[in-house]
Amino acid sequence: MKFTKMHGCGNDYVYVSGFQETIEDYPAMARKVSNRNFGVGSDGLVVILPGTAGDFRMRMFNPDGSEAEMCGNAIRCVGKYVYDKGMTREKVVRVDTLAGLKVLELTEEDGTIAKVRVDMGEPVLDPVKIPVASDAQPVLAEVVEASGRSFPFTCVSMGNPHAVTFVEDTDAFPVEEIGRQVEVDAKFPRKTNVEFVQVLDRETVKMRVWERGTGETLACGTGACATLVACVLNGKTERKATVRLLGGDLFIEWDEATNHVFMTGPATLVFEGELHV
Amino acid sequence: MKFTKMHGCGNDYVYVSGFQETIEDYPAMARKVSNRNFGVGSDGLVVILPGTAGDFRMRMFNPDGSEAEMCGNAIRCVGKYVYDKGMTREKVVRVDTLAGLKVLELTEEDGTIAKVRVDMGEPVLDPVKIPVASDAQPVLAEVVEASGRSFPFTCVSMGNPHAVTFVEDTDAFPVEEIGRQVEVDAKFPRKTNVEFVQVLDRETVKMRVWERGTGETLACGTGACATLVACVLNGKTERKATVRLLGGDLFIEWDEATNHVFMTGPATLVFEGELHV
Repeated sequence: MKFTKMHGCGNDYVYVSGFQETIEDYPAMARKVSNRNFGVGSDGLVVILPGTAGDFRMRMFNPDGSEAEMCGNAIRCVGKYVYDKGMTREKVVRVDTLAGLKVLELTEEDGTIAKVRVDMGEPVLDPVKIPVASDAQPVLAEVVEASGRSFPFTCVSMGNPHAVTFVEDTDAFPVEEIGRQVEVDAKFPRKTNVEFVQVLDRETVKMRVWERGTGETLACGTGACATLVACVLNGKTERKATVRLLGGDLFIEWDEATNHVFMTGPATLVFEGELHV
Repeated sequence: MKFTKMHGCGNDYVYVSGFQETIEDYPAMARKVSNRNFGVGSDGLVVILPGTAGDFRMRMFNPDGSEAEMCGNAIRCVGKYVYDKGMTREKVVRVDTLAGLKVLELTEEDGTIAKVRVDMGEPVLDPVKIPVASDAQPVLAEVVEASGRSFPFTCVSMGNPHAVTFVEDTDAFPVEEIGRQVEVDAKFPRKTNVEFVQVLDRETVKMRVWERGTGETLACGTGACATLVACVLNGKTERKATVRLLGGDLFIEWDEATNHVFMTGPATLVFEGELHV
């Protein structure tokens, strides 16, 4: 089976064209390729298929074989894949996902796609929908206790729940210790992703993320979007800012006219492979 | 750069033919390919070159770019590589390594190499050479304290130091907690690898390994050899036994006539790749 290994800010997947390859059992293949010692090694499997509403459809599977709805870092790589492989000549590509139709804008450099802008939709600020047990709307400073300290969280859903708090120094912050406790706090009935944000100036922040069910990761696209929304709601940044993650930079815009959040970031080809199945 | 990803009991490397590819900077390439998110992802880089004393030469580099002497799991894959790629027609292959000339015996199944037997040389039992601070020779029950408990260790060098102790149940044993302390105990002037061994019968043991400078790993070839030697010295097994590691099984023989230890185990092709450098 031919595949392409790509990453977006270090969030890495095995990409396979469903136009050329037939995979009998997606969950089994995802488990096989994702294993970092016995397989290719990745955060999961992404299969690119013909679209219905969109030009293409992406399906993504986690290392445990479960199907994921969408990933902002992965869908950028899908945009690069279909353009660089000549599957489209358009610079605007619409992709069906389990989280709905997503529109990508591709930026070419030296003949290949280097950056992709993704319309990530509207942020959800209603505490019932996020969900978070809070009387405030928006939820700007819901206090959660962890390790004997109190942290005020701004809560935002980008299709998945995020709790954002501001810290002095993300490098020195005990992300694992605090993230692990906040994730499962009783205020979050479906648990939560947790973002720790250091504001550098009105157009730049640093962020480290504790992902629900996973732990600290190099990058989280929806987390970066939730971070920018939280920054704007708290008056910390402009509506456009760069979010510096451990795995790379994402440029996030919260458009006032449409209320949509747009994420622009890199999509990087690592290697082409052929798996012996 | 064309490469092949292979593993031996889950110990996985990126293999490159120095006959076909030119690598300007081995340490830099090792760091690049080993990264599991931004690169290919591996325990290191192995380059196969023309031999001087042997038929071939292997050079191996750790993820930090430092050069490694030898790895029993990696050299089996070198045997498979040179045979399956038609670089030799011989089933006995001699490979130059920084730890000296190693002789491999290849076993073919369905046209490709499935298993490789490696002469791992003589075990070193002299405490000064292992090294371990002990008056005994062989060192059969050097007691080390960890977490308030006392563990008797049998000490063996297979070119690198190993401390082996017998436990009731490797699955339930706190390998990280105890291994971390024993590794740096003052009795081991160059630190030590630590093996926790459960004897199942006189021809089968289970083993988990804490590798010096790395932590718990799926497999350690020299650790499996040291384990069998320790079992024989303590009357626990015959001179031939299967060592079951987390990453797979290794069959170890301590030959009475030559005093050499032979390791037989699998070598597995995962995929062929081409890296965009």
